[in-house]
Amino acid sequence: MRADPKMSLAEVEAFLEAEFPQLRHGGRMVSVESVGPMSARLRLHSDERHLRPGGTVSGPAMFMLADVGIYVAILAQIGPVALAVTTNLNINFLRKPPHGDVLAEISLLKLGKRLAVGEATLFAQGPDGFDDEPVAHAVGTYSIPPR
Amino acid sequence: MRADPKMSLAEVEAFLEAEFPQLRHGGRMVSVESVGPMSARLRLHSDERHLRPGGTVSGPAMFMLADVGIYVAILAQIGPVALAVTTNLNINFLRKPPHGDVLAEISLLKLGKRLAVGEATLFAQGPDGFDDEPVAHAVGTYSIPPR
Amino acid sequence: MRADPKMSLAEVEAFLEAEFPQLRHGGRMVSVESVGPMSARLRLHSDERHLRPGGTVSGPAMFMLADVGIYVAILAQIGPVALAVTTNLNINFLRKPPHGDVLAEISLLKLGKRLAVGEATLFAQGPDGFDDEPVAHAVGTYSIPPR
Amino acid sequence: MRADPKMSLAEVEAFLEAEFPQLRHGGRMVSVESVGPMSARLRLHSDERHLRPGGTVSGPAMFMLADVGIYVAILAQIGPVALAVTTNLNINFLRKPPHGDVLAEISLLKLGKRLAVGEATLFAQGPDGFDDEPVAHAVGTYSIPPR
Repeated sequence: MRADPKMSLAEVEAFLEAEFPQLRHGGRMVSVESVGPMSARLRLHSDERHLRPGGTVSGPAMFMLADVGIYVAILAQIGPVALAVTTNLNINFLRKPPHGDVLAEISLLKLGKRLAVGEATLFAQGPDGFDDEPVAHAVGTYSIPPR
Repeated sequence: MRADPKMSLAEVEAFLEAEFPQLRHGGRMVSVESVGPMSARLRLHSDERHLRPGGTVSGPAMFMLADVGIYVAILAQIGPVALAVTTNLNINFLRKPPHGDVLAEISLLKLGKRLAVGEATLFAQGPDGFDDEPVAHAVGTYSIPPR
Repeated sequence: MRADPKMSLAEVEAFLEAEFPQLRHGGRMVSVESVGPMSARLRLHSDERHLRPGGTVSGPAMFMLADVGIYVAILAQIGPVALAVTTNLNINFLRKPPHGDVLAEISLLKLGKRLAVGEATLFAQGPDGFDDEPVAHAVGTYSIPPR
Repeated sequence: MRADPKMSLAEVEAFLEAEFPQLRHGGRMVSVESVGPMSARLRLHSDERHLRPGGTVSGPAMFMLADVGIYVAILAQIGPVALAVTTNLNINFLRKPPHGDVLAEISLLKLGKRLAVGEATLFAQGPDGFDDEPVAHAVGTYSIPPR
């Protein structure tokens, strides 16, 4: 079940580059740091567009990071044969993130024929590296089209 | 309980303009169409930045519209005395929206001293006006700081 | 789209009686009050088993009412040809309900070939009838097996 | 932050026994197996009342296990000084559990002054012990009364 993913990091990044050019709109917003069995790690590069007053990362930016992250973990695992579509995403905002990059650790909870469910735990970069305590946590469901 | 809101539409728009200038980054993204007792209506102006391949409105853009919408309904009802913070948002994507504006109908389910809960139902503009069937539905919880 | 449901109230109740006898375990816990196009109304009969200390209706009992209610609305609409399975349910507890019956108003937001999404708004019976303000609100997603 | 919990396993069980006698209604339904820093493990003892046709554990029973489990982890950590109340619970049902006990691994994501957020991952007992793949996953938010 925890088989190796079908796509490499380079293949995933090339796919995103081609299919989701808006992820780079005005600079590199999100990068995939690694993919593994039923898992992935992504980074949100902090950027003025994601900021609210007070200099923190916005909710929609964290939503986007979690959503793209779970999508990437599914994509890497099953390959680019079918485009998964988000059907549900539940996000909890836990702490106000400082100004800086945000890291998303993705873990797939289920990868079925029709539905996949994954979880994203987001950590903020502080002055001494990434904090131990998450700034946000999301669980998303994705519909996988019939192949 | 369904008292009149404390802020008018013009006051809400002026507050957003001052506090969330990024909602206008690169043009008018979101506008508030009306506020009422425990309710509000907002419009997402379709724009290239929100589009995925295929020309549809992106998930993060709909998340942002729902999130801002519930925030606005709370703000209008209680006034700008305290800044509510999103603690949880659950969104279901129901149909692929066509390219066009998206309307969010907001209704507050609870407005307590410490927590508020609201629901957002999103409708897409089709060739013959807004569709009857929602494209997305969200429920969000907001923490209200002690006053 | 808002076609009449395929099952009548009596047919739905007979189906539940046969397939979910535990809904009557130790007495009548839940009854279906009406079914309509993309909608249903159910009643939770208050009963000691659902109570927490303080005499209020328990969270799991309200979860069960919302879950059964959305299931019933789907069942009535598409008929007993396929058994829908809950894949996700998000519930917000809004107010502490008094001791008494709870009414669930169900509305389907989407009824697709593979997924259905419905919302349940729960109202508690007070001394002067059902309150205007909901005690809980849930949104659930159901997977519909291939037919 | 990951300080030792304020209550021992025995203290938590005695508290639940006194405050939630319905958890034992008709026999022992749920037991707490361990508590630790920001964590807990609970077991649902399979029992006819939790079964649906087909002999699987019901959704409401898994909801209850997740809800009680996160409550227990908060209780153990902060002590019985304040009664937390569930405000939101989002549950994903991932696989149909076999007939047997269900184990819930609880981890607190946030323990603030006013809100706590925890996650519950549920595993089913199969013929050869507990499966690696979860049957359900829940995230819940609890409001902590002012002390």
